[in-house]
Amino acid sequence: MNNDVYKDSLELHKKYHGKIETVSKVKLDNRKALSLAYTPGVAEACREISHDPKLAYEYTLKKNTIAVVSDGSAILGLGNLGPLAAIPVMEGKAAIFKEFGGVDAFPICLDTQDTEEIIKAVKQIAPVFGGINLEDISAPRCFEIEERLRAELDIPVMHDDQWGAATVTLAGLINSLKLTNKTKDAKVVISGVGAAGVATARLLSAYGMNNIIYCDSQGIITKDRTDLTKEKLELISASNSNSTKGGLIDAIKNADIFIGLSKPGILTPDMVKSMAKNPIIFAMANPTPEIMPDEALNAGAFIVATGRSDFPNQANNSLVFPGAFKGILDSKFKQFEIGMFVKIAEKIASAVTEPKPDMILPSMFDKSIPIAVAEVIKSYN
Amino acid sequence: MNNDVYKDSLELHKKYHGKIETVSKVKLDNRKALSLAYTPGVAEACREISHDPKLAYEYTLKKNTIAVVSDGSAILGLGNLGPLAAIPVMEGKAAIFKEFGGVDAFPICLDTQDTEEIIKAVKQIAPVFGGINLEDISAPRCFEIEERLRAELDIPVMHDDQWGAATVTLAGLINSLKLTNKTKDAKVVISGVGAAGVATARLLSAYGMNNIIYCDSQGIITKDRTDLTKEKLELISASNSNSTKGGLIDAIKNADIFIGLSKPGILTPDMVKSMAKNPIIFAMANPTPEIMPDEALNAGAFIVATGRSDFPNQANNSLVFPGAFKGILDSKFKQFEIGMFVKIAEKIASAVTEPKPDMILPSMFDKSIPIAVAEVIKSYN
Repeated sequence: MNNDVYKDSLELHKKYHGKIETVSKVKLDNRKALSLAYTPGVAEACREISHDPKLAYEYTLKKNTIAVVSDGSAILGLGNLGPLAAIPVMEGKAAIFKEFGGVDAFPICLDTQDTEEIIKAVKQIAPVFGGINLEDISAPRCFEIEERLRAELDIPVMHDDQWGAATVTLAGLINSLKLTNKTKDAKVVISGVGAAGVATARLLSAYGMNNIIYCDSQGIITKDRTDLTKEKLELISASNSNSTKGGLIDAIKNADIFIGLSKPGILTPDMVKSMAKNPIIFAMANPTPEIMPDEALNAGAFIVATGRSDFPNQANNSLVFPGAFKGILDSKFKQFEIGMFVKIAEKIASAVTEPKPDMILPSMFDKSIPIAVAEVIKSYN
Repeated sequence: MNNDVYKDSLELHKKYHGKIETVSKVKLDNRKALSLAYTPGVAEACREISHDPKLAYEYTLKKNTIAVVSDGSAILGLGNLGPLAAIPVMEGKAAIFKEFGGVDAFPICLDTQDTEEIIKAVKQIAPVFGGINLEDISAPRCFEIEERLRAELDIPVMHDDQWGAATVTLAGLINSLKLTNKTKDAKVVISGVGAAGVATARLLSAYGMNNIIYCDSQGIITKDRTDLTKEKLELISASNSNSTKGGLIDAIKNADIFIGLSKPGILTPDMVKSMAKNPIIFAMANPTPEIMPDEALNAGAFIVATGRSDFPNQANNSLVFPGAFKGILDSKFKQFEIGMFVKIAEKIASAVTEPKPDMILPSMFDKSIPIAVAEVIKSYN
């Protein structure tokens, strides 16, 4: 990644002073227009909604608007930079929501990193929104925040670092299995058990892949470790892999699939060489992956995917979240279900008519994808 | 007001599903564009802001975006209809902010009416906003909420039901005094001492008008009453009028100016007849004023202003708030000051080159007004 992209990006941010704007859908250039959009006419919409709260979806932006909510605790791979530094990312996300999915989205960066306060604040601002996209909130708080908000709000809630990343990974994996004639019993190593790692494990399991070994910064996760979070304990009890002990170097032996959602450079060429035939590598650490694609391919990898746009097989959750929210906003469903993400992954995979090792995912600029993803949710049953 | 405006308004709200949308300022149709607006390029803006929080004004929407915040406790004249029913008004306001002042504004309708919780929620969502416009929050909570937020936040905060209404009233009054050769010593009766009444009183006082009698639903406000709020006590101790006792009928005798921010129909023609020569009537209750203009004029009123667009002299705070926020966002000032609103009122008054009894205020569709209002704040000292 050369430095120009950073310099050019800063120029762009400086030029526009932010990437999204709010725009009136109605011209307000005469008294009549103003009397309909504002007083006195607007009073009627207020009265109707006060009698039947559901009508907020008819008469207001709630129908098609979501909040992109962060506390700035885990911004990209940059760490805990706080709410102000989170704004550029949340704005970018909001812009993608509109440009790719036709969903109106507004960034909300919260000046608190307390789990209970975040939950309370999001519930308090929920009335104007039709959905909540949680973003860049560090694990393990993100799990409780998402779970609680899903239970306590009557609008859909999704933590994109979990489900967007997991879904696009599963989509790529489905085509990878096809290309290598591997099955759902393939041995998977997931390196990194944060937001994306946990959700990916859950989604793989929902898809029927349960032969998974987990590694975190302390090595392989086994039942006898005393430092495990609730989520990690759940994952290993659901896994049916043999409980190898040791580190990534031990876990990776004879593995079919490596999924890295962890740290730059931790997968070595020798580890790739120790994998089963036709290794499948998802090295998703951003911007620097767990192993560079050329190194992995030279060591015998059959398929390599990363999060980066400058290599083939970019596994980018932009393929998922715009369509997923558009779909749920336009559907009868009140909440996302894990089964929806499995179906979305299958749909995205099937959008590549002829998968190849260097083309397991569709382009995120293919405008048919968000429409197809939305349709998956609308027709889900 | 015929019913068509309500029917047509509902149609409009149904057609658009909300009056504002969020729009990306940058096209995201290729990898390069996405790498600048989003990852990896966006990381640079995040890093810069984390080193110097002020740069959020350079690189994000914070520079030109405000929140229009309500708890739905006092929606227009409709009462406490809650946060969902408040959305159409806050959206309308947001649309006016953009169309009239070029200010990006987003509606926030809070699912709490607890003073402390509102203050906390607004502080928590403040990072993405360059200012806070409070709206339709009932008195007396609105006073504490505005005061506390102004003290505890580093961005400008204004309760428009207070300062927008007060400023446009003073603007109209300045031209009314000129037309009637009355002075700042003119005797004023303010009927209704809620958000707008209190702020109008404070602003008149800052302008130098202190001969004011206050009436609320219990009659004239006097020191010996035991039911007075902090704000009402403050107002009467600042007033230098003789402390008449009784009701509106007693207060209004020989008054030069009636300012109604209260209830429909409470000013009778006989009361107008009992006023001093060339009575000035601001009957601002909305949508039905304290007295209908024709009744007031028939009873001898010289000038009548209302909040309505279907009569002459519409005193509409749309003349004030778009320019006021545009000005403060573009200025060196961290917070609104009462002196700014005095200057804005003078500027709006002076925009009417030749005031007449039925033309004391400029048209709110005069695009030079918000620009002039913004300029007042930018050059304030």
